Amino acid sequence: MTEIFSLDATAIAGEVRRKRVSACEVTRTALERADGLNPRLNCFSAIFHDAAMSAASEIDRKIDRGIDPGPLAGVPFGVKNLFNVKGVTTLVGSKILQEAPAEKQDATAVARLKDAGAILIGANHMDEFAYGFTTQNAHYGPTRNPHDLDHSAGGSSGGSAASVAAHVVPLNLGSDTNGSIRVPAAFCGIFGLKPTLRRLSRAGAYPFVPELDHVGPFARSVRDLALAYDLIQGPDPADPFCLQRPVEPTLPTLERPVQALRAALLGGWFQDGADPEILAVTDEVASALGARQTVSLTGVAEARAAAFCLTAASGAALHLDHLRTRPQHFDPATRDRFFAGALLPASVIHRVRQIRLAFRDHLRAIFQDFDVLIAPVAPTSAPRLDQTTLKLGDREVPLRPNVGLYTQPLSFIGLPIVTVPVNRTNGLPIGVQVIAAAWREDTALRVAAQLERDGIAKSPIPAFLREGG
Amino acid sequence: MTEIFSLDATAIAGEVRRKRVSACEVTRTALERADGLNPRLNCFSAIFHDAAMSAASEIDRKIDRGIDPGPLAGVPFGVKNLFNVKGVTTLVGSKILQEAPAEKQDATAVARLKDAGAILIGANHMDEFAYGFTTQNAHYGPTRNPHDLDHSAGGSSGGSAASVAAHVVPLNLGSDTNGSIRVPAAFCGIFGLKPTLRRLSRAGAYPFVPELDHVGPFARSVRDLALAYDLIQGPDPADPFCLQRPVEPTLPTLERPVQALRAALLGGWFQDGADPEILAVTDEVASALGARQTVSLTGVAEARAAAFCLTAASGAALHLDHLRTRPQHFDPATRDRFFAGALLPASVIHRVRQIRLAFRDHLRAIFQDFDVLIAPVAPTSAPRLDQTTLKLGDREVPLRPNVGLYTQPLSFIGLPIVTVPVNRTNGLPIGVQVIAAAWREDTALRVAAQLERDGIAKSPIPAFLREGG
Repeated sequence: MTEIFSLDATAIAGEVRRKRVSACEVTRTALERADGLNPRLNCFSAIFHDAAMSAASEIDRKIDRGIDPGPLAGVPFGVKNLFNVKGVTTLVGSKILQEAPAEKQDATAVARLKDAGAILIGANHMDEFAYGFTTQNAHYGPTRNPHDLDHSAGGSSGGSAASVAAHVVPLNLGSDTNGSIRVPAAFCGIFGLKPTLRRLSRAGAYPFVPELDHVGPFARSVRDLALAYDLIQGPDPADPFCLQRPVEPTLPTLERPVQALRAALLGGWFQDGADPEILAVTDEVASALGARQTVSLTGVAEARAAAFCLTAASGAALHLDHLRTRPQHFDPATRDRFFAGALLPASVIHRVRQIRLAFRDHLRAIFQDFDVLIAPVAPTSAPRLDQTTLKLGDREVPLRPNVGLYTQPLSFIGLPIVTVPVNRTNGLPIGVQVIAAAWREDTALRVAAQLERDGIAKSPIPAFLREGG
Repeated sequence: MTEIFSLDATAIAGEVRRKRVSACEVTRTALERADGLNPRLNCFSAIFHDAAMSAASEIDRKIDRGIDPGPLAGVPFGVKNLFNVKGVTTLVGSKILQEAPAEKQDATAVARLKDAGAILIGANHMDEFAYGFTTQNAHYGPTRNPHDLDHSAGGSSGGSAASVAAHVVPLNLGSDTNGSIRVPAAFCGIFGLKPTLRRLSRAGAYPFVPELDHVGPFARSVRDLALAYDLIQGPDPADPFCLQRPVEPTLPTLERPVQALRAALLGGWFQDGADPEILAVTDEVASALGARQTVSLTGVAEARAAAFCLTAASGAALHLDHLRTRPQHFDPATRDRFFAGALLPASVIHRVRQIRLAFRDHLRAIFQDFDVLIAPVAPTSAPRLDQTTLKLGDREVPLRPNVGLYTQPLSFIGLPIVTVPVNRTNGLPIGVQVIAAAWREDTALRVAAQLERDGIAKSPIPAFLREGG
C-alpha cells in the first residue's frame, strides 16, 4: 500500500475527511519526515511543529463535530520563505532579514490554503532574495535534489520543490520571476504552475521584481495544482494589482480534453544548445499532443535580455538602501548582480518596456493559431552542485545565469505555464513547459492533465524512497 | 462691433453656420493675422495658406448644399508643432526633425477638430521636444507674449497660447507633461485644459514622457474649451492607452453650477515663494468659490522631484540615439537636461513609481472631501525674456526649471485641471489652476464656467489689440 505521505493532496484530504486517517497523524508524519530528511536535503528553513499540530487538531475537531474541514483537510504544505507567515520572520533567503520582526499575518495565498484545511508545516529555503536558479545559498547552504544529493534542486524555489519531490509535503507555494517555479519543478520532477502575471494575489509575498513576480503552487499531480490554484485565485483587496474578478474553477474541467487541440513546439531559441535528451523528451510531449508545427518566435533574445536587465535594475532598486549600507551581508552571488543592476541607466527601463509590449503582441498573435506551445524548461537537467558552467551545444557558458534561458523570455510577458515532469525510467528528471495564452491557465492545466492521464507526465519517485527512505 | 477674429470659436461657428460670414472670409482673416503678427510674436512655425483656404471652401460648399458643416464650422485653429499634420514634417521644436519626412496622416486630436469643421491654419512654436516652460527655442527664437513683447509666452506650448491670446485663432491644441498647457495659458491670459492622464488620444502627438504626456485645448472661453474637449474625447484604436469608452459631453452641463460645491485652497508648497499678487488673485478665486479651507498636501516636494527625474530619464531614453550621435544639433537648454537624465540610474524610476502611487492615493483621499482644489499656475506672471532667475520669497533660483513648481506635482498624478485667466485691469495676466479628481474634467469645467459667468475669470485683450493692432 502507498504510504500516506506519498499520496497527493487530494487523496490525503479524502482520507482525512473520511476519517481513515486523522489530520494529526498526517501532520505528525510530515513533521517527522521534514525533521528526518532536512539534514540531507536542507530544504526547510523552519519547521512549525507546534503551530502545525495545533492546526491539525483543529481540523480533526471540525471533522468530529461534522463541520466541513475544507477541500485540503489535513494536507501538510510548505511555503518558500518569502511568504509571510504569522509569528514568523520572513527571511527571503537572506541574512539581513533575520533581524526583521515576526509577521503579523499570513500572506493571502498562505491564508487561503489554510482556510481550505491545509496545515502549514514549514518554510522552505531559496536563493537569496529569489535571485538565482540553483538554491545555492551562501548563508544557509545548498538545497539538495532528492533524486541525487550531489545535484541542485533548482531555484529560486528549490526548497519548496525538493520538499514535494521527497514526499514530505504534497503541496508547496513558490514564486517565479524568471523561472523560479518552473526550473526547480523540472529539476525535482514535479508539477508547477506559474499563472498569468497578476492573476494571483501577491499580498504578503516579499517582492523581487514587481513587474515580473508571480506566485504559484507545486504538486505531484495536476489535480492538486488545479485545486490549489482554484483556492488561491480571486479578488484580494490587499493586492490591488491582482485580477479583481473571480474566474471559473479549473478543477472540474480537468478531465475534459481540449477539443481539437492546436499545439506547437517552440523551435529556434527554445531548442538552441539543449541536451539531446531534453530535446527528445520535449519532442515526445509535443507529439503526444499532436503538434505538427514548430514555431520560431522573433525577438526572444531581446526579450530575455530585457528581462535580465529589468530584474537586475528593479531588484537593485528594492534593496538599494541595504546595498549601500550593508553590502557585506548579502550573498556574494546576488550582491554582484544587484550592484550591476544599480548601475544600469534609467533609459534601459524605457527600452525594456518597448521590448515587452512588442514581444507580448507577438505572442498574442501566435496564440491566435495555437492553444498551447511546448518548450523545455531548461537546456539541462539538474546540474551538479559543484558545476559552474553549462554546455550549450559547443559553447561553454556560466551556469547560474543561463539556467533560465528558456523560462525567462516567457515570464517576461506573464504567460501562464504548467511545468510537467516527463515520465522516464532513469536519469534525472526532465520538465517541459506547457505554455498558454494570457489568462488561460485552464488550458495549460487541462493539457497537463491529459499528459498525466496518458502516462506521458508523471512525477518520478526518488530512489531513496523506492528503497524505503 | 467686435471683430470676427475676437469672437470665440462657438460664436464664429454660429456666424458661419448662419451664413453671416463665410468660412473662407474667417480663414482669410486668420491667415492674414498670422502672417501679420508672426514677425512680432514668432508663434507660428508654419502657416498652411493653401490647405486652410481649401478646407474653408469645402465648409462653405457644405453650407451652400445644406450639409451640416459641424459644430466648429469655419473656425480657424492652430496646433503645437508636435501634432502630426498630413503633408507636414512634425518639428517638435527641433532642428534634428527638420529632416524627417512629411506625415501621412493627422494626429487623432487634429483630425477630430477638422471633422467638426475647424480649419487648421498653422503649426505653433514650442520648446525643443517640449522640454521647457518659456518657448525660448535656440533654433527658432523665442515666442513673445502678446501682452508684452519683452516677456515670455510660457511654454512649452507657447506658440499655441500666444496665437489664441493675440486673437489669431480662437482655438489651439497643446500638450502638457509638467505644465506645458497651464503655464502658457496663465502667462498669456487664456483658458487651457489639461485633461486626466490617458483621457484623450495621443495618437500622432510626438511623445516626450509617455507616463506624463497629456494633450488638451486652449481657448478664450470655457464653452470653447468644453466643446473642443468633447469633440476630441472617445475611444481611439490608434492609441490603446487612451480611455476606450466615450463619456458624457461636458458642454451641455456647463451652465449648471456645481451643487454645494466643496472647494479648497491649496496651501503650503502651492503658496510658498509666490508673488503676493499671485497669492491675492488665487485667494480671490478660492473665495468666489466659497472655499473656507486651506489644504496642505504631504509629499509634494517628493512628487515634484520624482516628476523631474522621470521627465529627464524618460525624455533622454526617447532621444538616446540622437543624444549619442548628434548632441550638437540639440538646443543647449534641453541637451544638458537630457544628458543628466541619461545618467540617472534605473533605481530612480522604481522610486518614482512608489512616490507616484503614494501621492495619487493621497490626492484620492483629499478628493473625498472636496470637488475642486485651487492653486496658482506659477509663482510669477510671465517673466521677461532676458530673465534667468526667479525670486521665490527671499530665495533666488534658476528661472526655467522653477516655473513649473506648482504645476508639475499635479500632472505627475494625472489630475484634470482647467487654467483660468483672472480678470484684472492692469499688469500681466495671472492664471489659476482649478483641479478636480481624476476623470472629473466635467467638474473642473463647470467650476471654470461659473468663474467666467461671475466675471472672476476672463481672458484679457492685449493692449495692442485694444489699440487696434
